Amino acid sequence: MPHPTRFAQRRQNLLAQLKGQPYEALLISNETNVSYLTGFTGDSSYLLLAPKICTIISDGRYTTQLSQECPDLDVCIRPQTDTIIVAASKVVKQAKISKLGIEADHLTVVNYEKLRTSVATLELCPTSGAVESLRQVKDASEIAEIRKAVYQAEKGFAVLRAQLQPEMTELEAAHTVEQAMRKFGATVAAFPPIIAVGERAALPHARPTNGRINEADFVLVDWGATAASGYKSDLTRLIVTGKISPKLEKVYGVVLKAQRAAIRSIRAGARCRDVDAVARRVIEAAGFGKQFSHGLGHGIGLNVHESPRFSAASDAELQPGMIVTVEPGIYLEGWGGVRIEDDCLVTRDGCEVLTSVPKELDQILVN
Amino acid sequence: MPHPTRFAQRRQNLLAQLKGQPYEALLISNETNVSYLTGFTGDSSYLLLAPKICTIISDGRYTTQLSQECPDLDVCIRPQTDTIIVAASKVVKQAKISKLGIEADHLTVVNYEKLRTSVATLELCPTSGAVESLRQVKDASEIAEIRKAVYQAEKGFAVLRAQLQPEMTELEAAHTVEQAMRKFGATVAAFPPIIAVGERAALPHARPTNGRINEADFVLVDWGATAASGYKSDLTRLIVTGKISPKLEKVYGVVLKAQRAAIRSIRAGARCRDVDAVARRVIEAAGFGKQFSHGLGHGIGLNVHESPRFSAASDAELQPGMIVTVEPGIYLEGWGGVRIEDDCLVTRDGCEVLTSVPKELDQILVN
Repeated sequence: MPHPTRFAQRRQNLLAQLKGQPYEALLISNETNVSYLTGFTGDSSYLLLAPKICTIISDGRYTTQLSQECPDLDVCIRPQTDTIIVAASKVVKQAKISKLGIEADHLTVVNYEKLRTSVATLELCPTSGAVESLRQVKDASEIAEIRKAVYQAEKGFAVLRAQLQPEMTELEAAHTVEQAMRKFGATVAAFPPIIAVGERAALPHARPTNGRINEADFVLVDWGATAASGYKSDLTRLIVTGKISPKLEKVYGVVLKAQRAAIRSIRAGARCRDVDAVARRVIEAAGFGKQFSHGLGHGIGLNVHESPRFSAASDAELQPGMIVTVEPGIYLEGWGGVRIEDDCLVTRDGCEVLTSVPKELDQILVN
Repeated sequence: MPHPTRFAQRRQNLLAQLKGQPYEALLISNETNVSYLTGFTGDSSYLLLAPKICTIISDGRYTTQLSQECPDLDVCIRPQTDTIIVAASKVVKQAKISKLGIEADHLTVVNYEKLRTSVATLELCPTSGAVESLRQVKDASEIAEIRKAVYQAEKGFAVLRAQLQPEMTELEAAHTVEQAMRKFGATVAAFPPIIAVGERAALPHARPTNGRINEADFVLVDWGATAASGYKSDLTRLIVTGKISPKLEKVYGVVLKAQRAAIRSIRAGARCRDVDAVARRVIEAAGFGKQFSHGLGHGIGLNVHESPRFSAASDAELQPGMIVTVEPGIYLEGWGGVRIEDDCLVTRDGCEVLTSVPKELDQILVN
């Protein structure tokens, strides 16, 4: 558990960023944002934040946990007859706030209306990405936690590789990698592992089936760990269990070339859409442009998908301390798919690739 | 995979329920609602539904999967430069819809504004709970799927009970029960299992630690399975590994009495707040009213928490086919907590308790 002052520092950073905004307080309703700002690991809780207000609105399940995890916060435990939005509006009213910032990317239309009508004189000011923009840039403790999640994922993959058998099913492989990550300290997988044999790998988000490893020449593994702190890793590798066909060699080579080129283009100041374009140009030049059907990557942290996003639509600029995935892929219906994914820490001059699972074609063979 | 006509039937039911509403089409943006209405098992997709429109708006990762899972739907794959809300607004515009229902409990303030401003002549009509009210009442296939999830959970618990050792940690126990459920066909736990030894059980939503089973006389286990179809189960039992103190005997007896009384009061037509009150009265009479700090239970289905809710604030009426948890608890800081939870199928005259793990005090001892 990180030291409480780390969370106080994050709240200070947020308040500093919000100076000059037309509202007096911000109501944080996104659970992950609340955790980021407070260290609280439960859910279903809001945070009301202003220079002189720091109140978490929660329920009776969390009374004890809040006193342990957030001893420095004011806590409002709502009665069971109040929904969280009713309880939050009471806290807002009591604090005599007249202009309130809300998280427009998270607050639902219903709760917005309830908040608006519950306090007659209240003006709501929609905000977007205030906490997320802070979360994009990881502090030293967050980088250390993501390194842990990378370590757990890599250990899990090594165990899977070692245990891989022709008769193993995709589901068994998924469970094997998750179980192994837990042996190394992960609480859970960062997301349900994708284990896709042969043509099932043509679905970028395939769900593991009872199909067996030996049904084709290769299996795609997309997996990650959640460290005890909640921080996540996210990797993808192909494992070749059979023959390397000329087609596989070609497709794999294109994806690897695209991934390396994109990684080389990462540095503070680079635009996300430009990094995306670097990989896309390599794949387009090889004639597979339409078969690279998703963005190049995304930030990781407390969520497995967070800002920034690598896509043609994103003009966000990379900053030192961001941690992003780089994961180009080529998907060919009826044949299969190849994706290679690493996690990269953006630095002033380039990036540090945090993940180190071998990815040369001759290194991914398992017999 | 259920037969596609089941999903067509659900869409028919929804459209029938929406007759007479002032809007021509409903935009379903909640992922679980989209899955319920279409059979699609991916995420990040919206459904536009009207008597003559049934279009799923998704992205390139899901092209193949959609053609396999929802061959009867029109599919709009958004370009990578369009966000899903932009793509949805284009579909709405093309369909010449002038009044559009939206899911106000799910759509965010930002996406509401984007939708509203993207089509100049469009009027948005906030709706609440349209799909959720259908989802509350399970059809035969859903009941069968939840029975599977109950079976998987009970098998997992039996394995945990059999493998329980004094030196085992809470985390190891959590992993053991999840792994065992998977051996019986679950894809994943319905939620991270709660394994809380002794005083840690005073936190209703405790997270497993490296604390060991033998650190106290009892351990609370709250767990459930997710069947391959996505349907979930949710149970809680105490396991006594040491002595039964007079205090444990008393508290356990009160919780069990409250739970049984509540289960007896369940039938079609009963109000949720009245069922909640039945359990609460038993616990209050024993002097533990303040220590029962949450609602009595909730619906289960594709989500582990869904409508209806048993709470003092809910005047919803039970209907045949609803499946609800009944889980009173008493939490005493510094000592521990007791909760007993079963899953109940509401019938015309009462309910069928779907879960059958023994719960008499003398049956929960493990030596």
